[in-house]
Parts: sequence; structure tokens; C-alpha cells
Amino acid sequence: MKDKFSGIISSDAEKINKILEDHALLRCGDSPKDRATAAEVYALSAGGKRIRPVLAVEFYRLFSGEKEPPEYVYEAACALEITHTFSLIHDDMPEMDDDDMRRGKPSTHVAFGCAEALLAGDGLAILPYELLSDIALRGDISPDTAVRLINILSQNAGNSGMIAGQMLDLWSEERTDIGEEFLTEMSFLKTGCMLIASCLFGAVMAGATPEQEQSAAIYAKNVGLGFQIIDDVLDVTADPTTLGKPVKSDIGRHKPTFADIYGTDGARQKAEALSEAAAHELEKYPGSELLREFALSLASRNK
Amino acid sequence: MKDKFSGIISSDAEKINKILEDHALLRCGDSPKDRATAAEVYALSAGGKRIRPVLAVEFYRLFSGEKEPPEYVYEAACALEITHTFSLIHDDMPEMDDDDMRRGKPSTHVAFGCAEALLAGDGLAILPYELLSDIALRGDISPDTAVRLINILSQNAGNSGMIAGQMLDLWSEERTDIGEEFLTEMSFLKTGCMLIASCLFGAVMAGATPEQEQSAAIYAKNVGLGFQIIDDVLDVTADPTTLGKPVKSDIGRHKPTFADIYGTDGARQKAEALSEAAAHELEKYPGSELLREFALSLASRNK
Repeated sequence: MKDKFSGIISSDAEKINKILEDHALLRCGDSPKDRATAAEVYALSAGGKRIRPVLAVEFYRLFSGEKEPPEYVYEAACALEITHTFSLIHDDMPEMDDDDMRRGKPSTHVAFGCAEALLAGDGLAILPYELLSDIALRGDISPDTAVRLINILSQNAGNSGMIAGQMLDLWSEERTDIGEEFLTEMSFLKTGCMLIASCLFGAVMAGATPEQEQSAAIYAKNVGLGFQIIDDVLDVTADPTTLGKPVKSDIGRHKPTFADIYGTDGARQKAEALSEAAAHELEKYPGSELLREFALSLASRNK
Repeated sequence: MKDKFSGIISSDAEKINKILEDHALLRCGDSPKDRATAAEVYALSAGGKRIRPVLAVEFYRLFSGEKEPPEYVYEAACALEITHTFSLIHDDMPEMDDDDMRRGKPSTHVAFGCAEALLAGDGLAILPYELLSDIALRGDISPDTAVRLINILSQNAGNSGMIAGQMLDLWSEERTDIGEEFLTEMSFLKTGCMLIASCLFGAVMAGATPEQEQSAAIYAKNVGLGFQIIDDVLDVTADPTTLGKPVKSDIGRHKPTFADIYGTDGARQKAEALSEAAAHELEKYPGSELLREFALSLASRNK
């Protein structure tokens, strides 16, 4: 059963990867003006779990009842991965986390230079809105749906979502007086909001009811916090080869993490409880087995 | 006559400033998570000519025939100024132009720190899409219009517009083999595209015909190139107090400019010819006097 689900998720992720590779908006020549796009393609093709677009596709499946979502659903879902990738590029830069490696490859600013990485991040911050409005202009989604998707993404990625979370993360450096409440808010803003956007993307494209949208958001909020807790645990415990980046990078810079507050075992238990709450929220919907399994698997991941 | 026009433009710009100051999306508390927004407000309130939103409002006036554009037109026009400001914040950073002063005040990264400026730029890169989709969700513009505005802005700001232009600008540093054709393309991408977006914003909101939209784009393209040429001239000749930033900053870093290629007098003549071409394009539209005058005044500006 678990293998069947992971097969579907891998096949979703493969389809996402193919769209990111082939998309006209991401094709570039080799003239100097294309160098930012080349850096964007580099960052997007570094792999990763593609959790955000996969969640969008799966929530579309759940609430539409369609087994084979149309191509545009995957394409719109890529807007989430593109936004996530822009934040990773800027996050890795020297003025932020100063990480030289990402997913087993040199970070974008190491491979292309800092100015190029800055511009590549900017390009990817804007691209989702071109992508989503293009899908609407060619008639695959209604303008109403496009406006909602754009509103959901920009709200959760921007000043009251991911950007605010990154600001808190930055501020928390070198502080030791930070507790559970602060970390929970930071994680909600930095990771949770974009997961909420991801689950809502699928729900909105499927024409979900307000109650279904609310369930998608509750699921995402719990999964998001659990996901961040496990990230903190892996940063202390994981094999760097498995993780694809140096471990303990947060501890090295004295940032308090969930692993400090709960201990690694306590943190894993906390993440499991959150995954169970996420899974529980979807029990009332027939066909939600995969998303429930997915939530539980995120809490036991080792990379 | 000229005074009457500059009065209207000042009053447009004042209204833009008021919206930028008062807008709910730009209000922030004093908690650490609001620090990126605080840096954004700082950058947005540094003044400037507000040329992009003013162009949007004036093209709305021209093609709608309404003397008093509704509030939402000004609000949507702010999306252009916000995008412009995001690019200025990132442009001033050490890895880009490394400019410590902007509009007579310390640049955002000097006032707030580099990481904060990076995040503030990111926040402002995303904000226009939240703003525009909000205006549609509350019913002031149709979802169709919102999708078109979002497509126009993202296309002209992103990889095939402003970002590509900034990439060319970066690449041109330390090069001396750069000629008129390269500088013209760079200027088109870096400045022209956002001016095209600005003029189209007003046209689209006014329900302009395709022919009117084309005139708006031709006007913008000519004004944009003329504007950049004058910028280059002012960078060599202007009084730094008038300009609000150190002069000759481009020459100091060996970037070739239009002033090098045409000479300062030749460059001023070229800019005048472009302004005249822009003005000429609008002659067929009754009520276009202000926009024609505006194009001509940009070529003779001294700041």
C-alpha cells in the first residue's frame, strides 16, 4: 500500500520536473541577458522532493475526484516550486544563511556569482505570476481561479507569510532566549504558509467547498510544523551525504531550533503527533489515503 | 499650459504617495517579523518622480476620457512603483551597483542591513501581485483585467524584461567593447519594458482598443530610451545635491554609457528626438496634450 502511494508521488514529482525542464518560460539562449535564467534553471533542476507541487496535485485529485489531473494543474503547481526555489537561492546567499551547498550541488551564488543569484532569485520570485496569468490567458483556468491562486500565493509567500518568517529566522540568529512559541510562529510563517498555499492551490483548482479548503489549510499547517521540526532534527542527526548539505549549520550559528527545545526524540514525537493530526483532518474525505500516508511519512523521513 | 500639466502630474504623484503611505498591505507593527516591511516602507517613501504610476494614471485618463480616475486606478498603478522600488533596493546592494545613497538618503541596505534589504526587495517583488489580485477580489476590476495587468507586469519585470536588462547591465561592467546596439537593448529591457507595462496598465484599465494599446507601447518605448539616455547624461553632468546620489558612479566602474557613445550634447539631442517621436505617436488622440508635454519634459530634465 505504501509502495503504491510512493509510486504515485514519484510520478507526480517526475511530471513536475519535466514541466520545469521543458517550460517555454524557462528556456534560455546563451546570450549574456539569459544568464539569470540559466541560474534559475540550475537552481530548479537541483532536484528536491517537490513537496509543494505534489501536495497541490494530490489535493486536486482528492477534491476533484479525477485520477489523472490535466496538464495545467501540474503547470500551475510549478508556481509553488518556483517560489520555494527563489527563497532557497536568496536564503543561501552570504548575507543570509551563507550556505555553499544545496541538494548536493554548489549553491546558485557559488556556481553563478552573488549578483547573478540575486537576479535569478528575483526572476523566480516574479515568474509564478507570469505562469499563472498565462494559463488563464490561454483559457485553461478561469480568470477567477487565476486571481484566487495568485492571491493565495502572493499572500503566503510575501510580507505576511514566508518573507516575515525569513525575517524572524534572521533575527533569531545569535539569540538564545527564544522559546517554543517563537519557533512555532517562525515555522508557521517560513514553511507553513507556503504549504497552506500548496494545498489550497489543488483545492481551488478542483472547485473545493469552503469547508474542504479549510481542511486543506489545517492539514497543511500541521504538516508544515511537523516538517520544520524534522528538518531541525535532521540538521543535528543526519548523514551529510544523505542530506546533501553540511549538517549542524544552524547550531554552528547559534540559532535555537526545535531539536534544542524538545530534544531529538521529543521533537520526533511532536512531529508524529502533528502528522497524525493532519491525517485525522482528512479522514472524512474518501480517497484521502495517499495524503494521510504522505503526512505520516514526512514525520519519519531521514532526508 | 506647462504649469497646468505639471500641476496635474504633481497631484497624481501626491495621490500615489498617499496610497503607498496608507495602504493596509504596507502597514507594519514593530515586531521583528515586520522588519522587512519596515525596510520596504522606508524604500517606498524615499520619494522619486513616481513616473511609472503617473504614466498609468494618465493613460487611463486619455483612453477612458474620465477626468477623475477612480481610486483603484491609482492603487493598481502603485504596483508599478512597488516593482520599480524592489529593483532599486536590490540594485543598490554591494553585489550589484554598491550604491550607498539613493534619492538623498542612505540606501535600504545601508539603513537596514544587507539581509534585510534582500528580504525587503523580495517582499516588494511579490507585493504587486497581492495588491492587484486583492483589487479584483473585492470587485473593483474584473478578474480578466487583473489577469492581464498581472501578465503585463510579470512579463515586463521578469526574465524577458527588467531582470534580463539588469543582467546585461551587470555583464557590461568592466567591458569597453560595448556599442550603441547593446546599450539600446539593455536600456529597452532594463527601463523600457517597465515603462511599457506602466502605459499599458492605464490603457488596459481604461478598456483601450488594441490600436490604442499599441500606441501606448510605442510611446513608452521611446520615452524609456530617452529617459535612460538622460539618466546617463545626468550621471556625468549633474550636481550631486540635485541628483540625490553620487554622480559618475557608472564611469567610476567603467560601464560604457550613452553619454560616452553620443557625447553629452549628442545624447541630449537623441533623447529629444525620442521624446518627439513619443509625443507624435499620441497626436491622433484628443486630450493627449499632457502626455505629449510629459514626454518632452523628460528629455529636458536635470534630475
